[in-house]
Amino acid sequence: MAETNRRIVLAARPDGPVRPEHFRLEEAPVPPVPDGHLLVRNRFLSLDPYMRGAMNDRKSYRQPQAIGETMLGGTVGEVVESRHPRFAKGDVVVGGFGWQLYGLSDGGGGLRKVDASKVPMQAFLGVAGMPGVTAWVGLNRIIAPKAGETVVVSAASGAVGSVVGQLAKAAGCRAVGIAGGPDKCRLVVEEFGFDACVDHKAGRLEQDLAAATPDGIDGCFENVGGPGLDAVLARMNAFGRIAVCGLIAGYNDEPIPVHQFRSVLTNRLRIQGFIVSEVPDAWPPALAELAGRVADGTLKYRETIARGLEAAPEAFIGLLRGANVGKQLVALD
Amino acid sequence: MAETNRRIVLAARPDGPVRPEHFRLEEAPVPPVPDGHLLVRNRFLSLDPYMRGAMNDRKSYRQPQAIGETMLGGTVGEVVESRHPRFAKGDVVVGGFGWQLYGLSDGGGGLRKVDASKVPMQAFLGVAGMPGVTAWVGLNRIIAPKAGETVVVSAASGAVGSVVGQLAKAAGCRAVGIAGGPDKCRLVVEEFGFDACVDHKAGRLEQDLAAATPDGIDGCFENVGGPGLDAVLARMNAFGRIAVCGLIAGYNDEPIPVHQFRSVLTNRLRIQGFIVSEVPDAWPPALAELAGRVADGTLKYRETIARGLEAAPEAFIGLLRGANVGKQLVALD
Repeated sequence: MAETNRRIVLAARPDGPVRPEHFRLEEAPVPPVPDGHLLVRNRFLSLDPYMRGAMNDRKSYRQPQAIGETMLGGTVGEVVESRHPRFAKGDVVVGGFGWQLYGLSDGGGGLRKVDASKVPMQAFLGVAGMPGVTAWVGLNRIIAPKAGETVVVSAASGAVGSVVGQLAKAAGCRAVGIAGGPDKCRLVVEEFGFDACVDHKAGRLEQDLAAATPDGIDGCFENVGGPGLDAVLARMNAFGRIAVCGLIAGYNDEPIPVHQFRSVLTNRLRIQGFIVSEVPDAWPPALAELAGRVADGTLKYRETIARGLEAAPEAFIGLLRGANVGKQLVALD
Repeated sequence: MAETNRRIVLAARPDGPVRPEHFRLEEAPVPPVPDGHLLVRNRFLSLDPYMRGAMNDRKSYRQPQAIGETMLGGTVGEVVESRHPRFAKGDVVVGGFGWQLYGLSDGGGGLRKVDASKVPMQAFLGVAGMPGVTAWVGLNRIIAPKAGETVVVSAASGAVGSVVGQLAKAAGCRAVGIAGGPDKCRLVVEEFGFDACVDHKAGRLEQDLAAATPDGIDGCFENVGGPGLDAVLARMNAFGRIAVCGLIAGYNDEPIPVHQFRSVLTNRLRIQGFIVSEVPDAWPPALAELAGRVADGTLKYRETIARGLEAAPEAFIGLLRGANVGKQLVALD
């Protein structure tokens, strides 16, 4: 290949908010393809909140992102050259090639072919991919709601939260979102079909959540933490379940004190942290349901697409402060 | 009966620490025994931290204690008169007659006969009663430790904590207690057989807990909350389990912020609040194991016994600040 690969590496670890200087754009030749390998031209990069945690050098559920190495991340793209028996040129594959235009693989590491004939390729990074499966696992395996129960979802307009609420509605629940700003709240109710959405920027979090959950809260899918989690804890019903998927309010390393922890005892709550990659048996049924619902139109989603690899750092910084609507992607054309 | 019943009622709800003036001693005639009823002369009253919560007039897992009514509580005593087919004079019965000398019952409300021939009567209020079953449920149903794992127990010298540690040891675990003061810590290790005990009054909670848990913490039986819970959260291993049984640090209604909540996500923890009365199927196997271990000497326990009903308020106030060792009882002779 005469092509040049471009990639974005971690230049420095953030000590507080992420800034553009924590990233560096590099160029390198596209590598040759050894026997048993394949080369993928990535078309879309997924940006996700977990990447912020990986930029730190401290104990977490994943290895820290190495300084000077390509930023980690999920991608979807096309096989442009294959010397691997299971892959052919033109196959659409989902992989974890990170923030770069090209990826070389031996076929392992979770690389998988997808059928992009009924579902747009980039949906496999969102609603029909890791974020969708995350929503499915937290709702079905941890919250496990019964019809008629109330499920609250934070970051409700996001790639994960929007799926949680739609699946909860399909299960016969009252779905209540928490999101930032009237535009996102309108989207959550009008597009994603939640019963209500509380705007946490409106300054009346406790009162608005109480009004939106007249029968209390039975399940919570927590993506954020902080004051929203405290407001939820204060309204949990007996035997409520809280799936902890993210605590974005603390990604800059401030501690996030939880003030309403007493509710765990008073209401006999179950709180469960989880990571979707550790629930492998859930992926096949989850992906089948999600792709089916996307194809038949019963599962809606939104995307915010940044154009070009160079736009990834600013898009990521925007994601961390909630500037995106729905799944944040980078188109690598 | 010519006897006079004496009882202690809730005189006023505490607004902060419990003081003697929140209680009032009353006298009343012992009631007549209608057909189908029985009269019990209570011999021991159990004092338990949950009573503090019941003194408040707010949402909790139990109805608030009514003002002017007899303080609620577990008792063991002897049937002195029976017009009930299932009970005979002289039977030893465990019931919930509260802070008073006599109790009238129709045989319901959980009243049960016990065999006090191999186990002292008052043990059915402690190690072989509700506190013991609480320990059994939290350990076996929530923490469910595997041999070789490390289990930390707060309030380790208490009626519940001391049983948790001994059962954890019997299950092949490393048992580490947290208790207040060198005397309690010595008791926890030397009498109850824990591998180590951290004195939370020594001012080195984090360091001492780290030294006592070189392989991290897999399970925690939480009776206290506050700084001890934060220290535990910071040392939890992946997939750790925390059974939340009590949060005594907050019984005076101060909020107890949890600062290390991020560990729930980082380590995919499960936190579960529970109340032993809501796990009825656990009682028969738990009571059988506990009474058996008391009878054969493999389960040790300590008691602090206050003498006389009038001593109950001060004993209860002492319990709330940790003055007791082992199960706090009041002998009602």
